[in-house]
Amino acid sequence: MSVEAVRIPTQAGVARAAEKIAAILPPTPLLPFTCREQQVYAKAECLQPIGVFKIRGAWHRLSDLTEEERAAGVVGVSSGNHAQGVAWAARRLGIAAAIVMPADAPQVKLARVRELGAEVVTYDRRTEDRDAISRALAAERDATLVHAFGDAWVIEGQGSTGIELSAQMQALAGGDPTRIITPLGGGGLAAGLALACPDAEIVGVEPEGWDDVARSLATGTIQRVAADAPATACDALQTPATWPVNFAVLNGRISAVTVSEAEVRAAQRFAFAQLRLVLEPGGATALAAALAGKVALDGRTALVLSGGNTDAASFARVLEEAA
Amino acid sequence: MSVEAVRIPTQAGVARAAEKIAAILPPTPLLPFTCREQQVYAKAECLQPIGVFKIRGAWHRLSDLTEEERAAGVVGVSSGNHAQGVAWAARRLGIAAAIVMPADAPQVKLARVRELGAEVVTYDRRTEDRDAISRALAAERDATLVHAFGDAWVIEGQGSTGIELSAQMQALAGGDPTRIITPLGGGGLAAGLALACPDAEIVGVEPEGWDDVARSLATGTIQRVAADAPATACDALQTPATWPVNFAVLNGRISAVTVSEAEVRAAQRFAFAQLRLVLEPGGATALAAALAGKVALDGRTALVLSGGNTDAASFARVLEEAA
Repeated sequence: MSVEAVRIPTQAGVARAAEKIAAILPPTPLLPFTCREQQVYAKAECLQPIGVFKIRGAWHRLSDLTEEERAAGVVGVSSGNHAQGVAWAARRLGIAAAIVMPADAPQVKLARVRELGAEVVTYDRRTEDRDAISRALAAERDATLVHAFGDAWVIEGQGSTGIELSAQMQALAGGDPTRIITPLGGGGLAAGLALACPDAEIVGVEPEGWDDVARSLATGTIQRVAADAPATACDALQTPATWPVNFAVLNGRISAVTVSEAEVRAAQRFAFAQLRLVLEPGGATALAAALAGKVALDGRTALVLSGGNTDAASFARVLEEAA
Repeated sequence: MSVEAVRIPTQAGVARAAEKIAAILPPTPLLPFTCREQQVYAKAECLQPIGVFKIRGAWHRLSDLTEEERAAGVVGVSSGNHAQGVAWAARRLGIAAAIVMPADAPQVKLARVRELGAEVVTYDRRTEDRDAISRALAAERDATLVHAFGDAWVIEGQGSTGIELSAQMQALAGGDPTRIITPLGGGGLAAGLALACPDAEIVGVEPEGWDDVARSLATGTIQRVAADAPATACDALQTPATWPVNFAVLNGRISAVTVSEAEVRAAQRFAFAQLRLVLEPGGATALAAALAGKVALDGRTALVLSGGNTDAASFARVLEEAA
């Protein structure tokens, strides 16, 4: 099955996803720390078994497939983190998975997807259209296409982060989160958080030059990243544009800010020294925005540390910049 | 008050410490991962607010002081991690703290103790006796001496790690831990775990050449580290000898193995890549022993990742060794 009517993600769907995920994965910790003299809380999704929150959406999607759909397999499309989520869930459910990944994805991500038993199909990020390739592959195999963010199940699954976070914030700080700051790429996690936590302000954080969602929110229509967008270390956030299923949730509901590459590296160093956590660049943008004073903070502000899949050489260079 | 009768740590004391600590600190996560094709569980004490388990014993000790004792202040003695625990607890309780630290302690540890508001008194690790210096300082001020490991409260407090770990293992793996592998320096944490988990096998892991506890266990009497012990990156485990209050618990109860410096660095890299955690060398010895096949593993084996206070330059060098 390669085409179906677009399902709209719902708050009830997020709640159901959270229950399914709680049954197989312990909650990631919500870690209190001091940022600009304010106690805030970090949701450490980098501590998921695959090092990133993407395990949530992939699990919700794949575990909802019918027996017939499972037998036909799945096709994922991803810069590397969603790929690991799909591969992890597929292996656990005994489903064949093929993942369409950019040939220049971090080696550590390519290797891990293969280790998890998935087939990797590479494409050239500059000249080829990953969505067209993955659609064709899914059609050819009659497999289910599992998009990295433009999918109701994936959005609902990522939203389970907000359900966990709210329960933990209540226990630690006596109330629901007032504000959640999150890395923002295609808008799967941000849309999920918006559905999960209807009373919280949601602030997405994009890398400079990759602010397509910020411009989409400003104009009320989906905008694309410029063809000459600058290089960014945030490979996980290099999405050309958000999708309608995401934008329908995000528009009028969230705000967005940007951070520089240097601010991202400073956040990686802060997480190393103060939280003893490894963050990949794209997983550090929310922390970067908080540290740089780009978002207001209060006593029930949470920020999502969304992933930690980076290679040793890159991380060593980030550390040495300050040493 | 600088002298008192030696109190013996008890299992009931560990239970009481665990309750006190649960009231102020959320549990650190117990993270499942695969080691030598076996699922095992890592207790991530590096995620404590001060980056190390030492916050537990310090809190149990200082919060049990009388009003009069609190007014007179405390003196700690530490290579840097216990120092941060005492400074953290003292600040929270409004107690003046002076910490005796080696002049060559990692800069990051010296700086953090000062940031937490404690007075730092340095000594020369090669020529001066830290216990004599700290006893004299405590006597001069009529302050309470809070030893890094040779103290019943400190042992009981560290033991709360085992209480948390057991509850988490029951939830994740359906039973109590069968074996707990832990870094081993003076024996505060190891003794606490032995009291907390009477049915678990406890395996302590010392750096090569710093195997004084292993030799003490073999001979049944407390042995000292050799005067010409090799250099080790595990500054947190550089204790010349365990103390009688610890050895009384450890002798006949635990076993000990050693790991090489290279095995420790390999474990730091594994934690970086597979767990997205920053470990200091001394916090990585249990993981090193597990990875190197020096301890048997089963489905309810836990290992303690005891601390993550390392500086950027040192960690970058460890990462680059493999890159």
